[in-house]
Amino acid sequence: MFQRPRGTRDFGPDEMARRRRALEKMRETALNFGFREIQMPTFEEIELFTKKSGPGIVEELYAFKDKGGRDIALRPEMTAQVMRFYVSDLSSLPKPLKLFYYGPCFRYENPQSGRFREFFQFGAEIAGANTPETDAEVIALASAIIAAVGLKGFTIRIGYIGVLRNMLSELKLSGAEIAAALHFLDKNDVEGFNLFASQKFISKETIERILSIRNLKGDIEILDDLNDGAAKDYLKEMTRSLSLLRVGKFQIDLGIIRGLDYYTGVVFEIDAPSLGAEKQICGGGSYDLVPLFGGEQVFTTGFALGFDRVLMAAENEGFPQIVDELDVYVIPVGDSAREKVLGIVATLRNAGLSVDYDLMRRSLSKNMKYASLAKAKQVIIAGEKELAKGTVTLRDMKSGDQKEIKIESLIEEMKK
Amino acid sequence: MFQRPRGTRDFGPDEMARRRRALEKMRETALNFGFREIQMPTFEEIELFTKKSGPGIVEELYAFKDKGGRDIALRPEMTAQVMRFYVSDLSSLPKPLKLFYYGPCFRYENPQSGRFREFFQFGAEIAGANTPETDAEVIALASAIIAAVGLKGFTIRIGYIGVLRNMLSELKLSGAEIAAALHFLDKNDVEGFNLFASQKFISKETIERILSIRNLKGDIEILDDLNDGAAKDYLKEMTRSLSLLRVGKFQIDLGIIRGLDYYTGVVFEIDAPSLGAEKQICGGGSYDLVPLFGGEQVFTTGFALGFDRVLMAAENEGFPQIVDELDVYVIPVGDSAREKVLGIVATLRNAGLSVDYDLMRRSLSKNMKYASLAKAKQVIIAGEKELAKGTVTLRDMKSGDQKEIKIESLIEEMKK
Repeated sequence: MFQRPRGTRDFGPDEMARRRRALEKMRETALNFGFREIQMPTFEEIELFTKKSGPGIVEELYAFKDKGGRDIALRPEMTAQVMRFYVSDLSSLPKPLKLFYYGPCFRYENPQSGRFREFFQFGAEIAGANTPETDAEVIALASAIIAAVGLKGFTIRIGYIGVLRNMLSELKLSGAEIAAALHFLDKNDVEGFNLFASQKFISKETIERILSIRNLKGDIEILDDLNDGAAKDYLKEMTRSLSLLRVGKFQIDLGIIRGLDYYTGVVFEIDAPSLGAEKQICGGGSYDLVPLFGGEQVFTTGFALGFDRVLMAAENEGFPQIVDELDVYVIPVGDSAREKVLGIVATLRNAGLSVDYDLMRRSLSKNMKYASLAKAKQVIIAGEKELAKGTVTLRDMKSGDQKEIKIESLIEEMKK
Repeated sequence: MFQRPRGTRDFGPDEMARRRRALEKMRETALNFGFREIQMPTFEEIELFTKKSGPGIVEELYAFKDKGGRDIALRPEMTAQVMRFYVSDLSSLPKPLKLFYYGPCFRYENPQSGRFREFFQFGAEIAGANTPETDAEVIALASAIIAAVGLKGFTIRIGYIGVLRNMLSELKLSGAEIAAALHFLDKNDVEGFNLFASQKFISKETIERILSIRNLKGDIEILDDLNDGAAKDYLKEMTRSLSLLRVGKFQIDLGIIRGLDYYTGVVFEIDAPSLGAEKQICGGGSYDLVPLFGGEQVFTTGFALGFDRVLMAAENEGFPQIVDELDVYVIPVGDSAREKVLGIVATLRNAGLSVDYDLMRRSLSKNMKYASLAKAKQVIIAGEKELAKGTVTLRDMKSGDQKEIKIESLIEEMKK
């Protein structure tokens, strides 16, 4: 017997119905926010991903040479692709450009709870608008998408990487040095940061001030202690827009660093505490990546959301068990009835109803059992004598009520 | 500048809106036929595909070793995966099992018109029902799915591989010899077939009879000349079901062989003549694959449909240019208006409308231009004075009509 590859999943009909419904809700929400969908290939030149994430990413990639000898990798994320697509084709579209996308991503890592080798991301970006309300729009969308799936238990934390960046710039550190410093802080490696800072002759006082920034967490008022006026003003205006857009629950957390070098201003993370150690379901912020991919500088802000994790969190809350229901299952009784029901089936399907019928020529009782397993809301029983009169029996599977109905009145009756 | 990999595609917002809409219609149709969706991983052990399609398929695969040394391939098609999934998990579900799936597939071949290295398939299978109406159901679904996308110019050709198989079996050929013979016939290699047949001491008369079967094309009446009574009865009953299900246009074509060894009875192909040389958009039939993957024998019938080709054919016919329209674009005029419109935006979005607003603090005229490019159906212009009175201006972008409206009446007015 063949096994599916480790860390990947098959989705059966019930699970797929839930996933499809969740994705539809997410898409609908993004479209209602005026975002438009794009799609990129499943694999790319490996360099596209190392350009954005550094050579370290290769360790985690599904990488291979194609038959033409090119180094190819299955995408580990989609932002680098959006940037490539933006530079080659999208940059001439009207600004602001509001985009979203969904698809499978791949990472070679040890499979564990909530982490898969093939996983699914939903993401969004805005390019070309450089205002606090643009960052607010992106966070409001992430929040609305998560809420649309039915998840209630999530928290939004908002930081501003610009604060630490500005403090480090003032110390006349190079770009690479700033990146190194932020890397220590992101990993919470205080010892490493201290060593690094002392080598750069940074005073103890400044070190303390930098380290303490990471502990600024709470309501918007904690920003009052901040020296950085521009950052303070931006964050206050952004969070005010967020409140006006009715995004209620968020807190400030200046400890959010997000690892990668290209974040510039607002950064945010969304957690679902019910997921435990792997609780982060979304991360994003404003970033500066287009020039890296050969385009002109443009303000960009966005997020990526872990589709699988959002669903896991929603299921922890007793996410409604959506199933594909069948409007009606049609059972012919008797050989001559078998052909006659096909016309009824075709008519009901053309009217937009979901209709299945007996393909196995089974007995009435076996068919009734199948109709119940297939979650049919109603059953049509078509016996030869009734059909001769132009009628069938329509049975409600919930109440058990049934009545004889003229075939031409079926659609009307069923849509009641 | 980075290039996307050869033979792959990016889909921008307009194209993606069309693709999404087409896929939604296909899904809706399959659900209305009582089929249920499943999904399998993007890659599998390479052996899964060679088991079904033979070692020759390796040439066309995106194959690689993962970091654990396993031989992996991006899927070139999805039926083998459905079989694997069926054997491991789905075989215990109630029969008949009606399944559909959609996703990217990959073949390393020279990119040319209508052939891509990453392409998209939509497929369906029924397992467990062994009646002519089951084959009819599958063909009716394929036809309905194609019609749902709006394509009119397509033709359905229906054959029965069982006819040739039975004739070859009667000659006491082995399974491998039958496969070899069918392969010659599939490739239309008459010379090769003649040589093969003469080596097996098959009479000229029989050879002629076999070759002539391939030319039986036309209405159902052509079957009257057929010796194979069982095949004739089955095909007649199947096509009668098809007519009763209101699938109008189809012809019999006993020349359909479909290359692979596992087809058993009915086979069919659907073409869109407007596509020229690469006109086939769908192929399928009944097949016997489950035992190959370690499961118990079960009657299975299904099809795979080239999503990209169906869309190309629909576009050749002037497929309607679907775009994502925006219900309303909101323009604040003046600084204090900027914050006030956010509440209006949130309220309208919560009411299910698609709403965008000025993120770039542009002038009224620039915003009007953007609203027009973004295909907004209506525009809300919110000036400071009006807002103070609790009103805004609602403008219909098509007619140019505009009127002052109370904010609390907006939803009602807009949903008119």
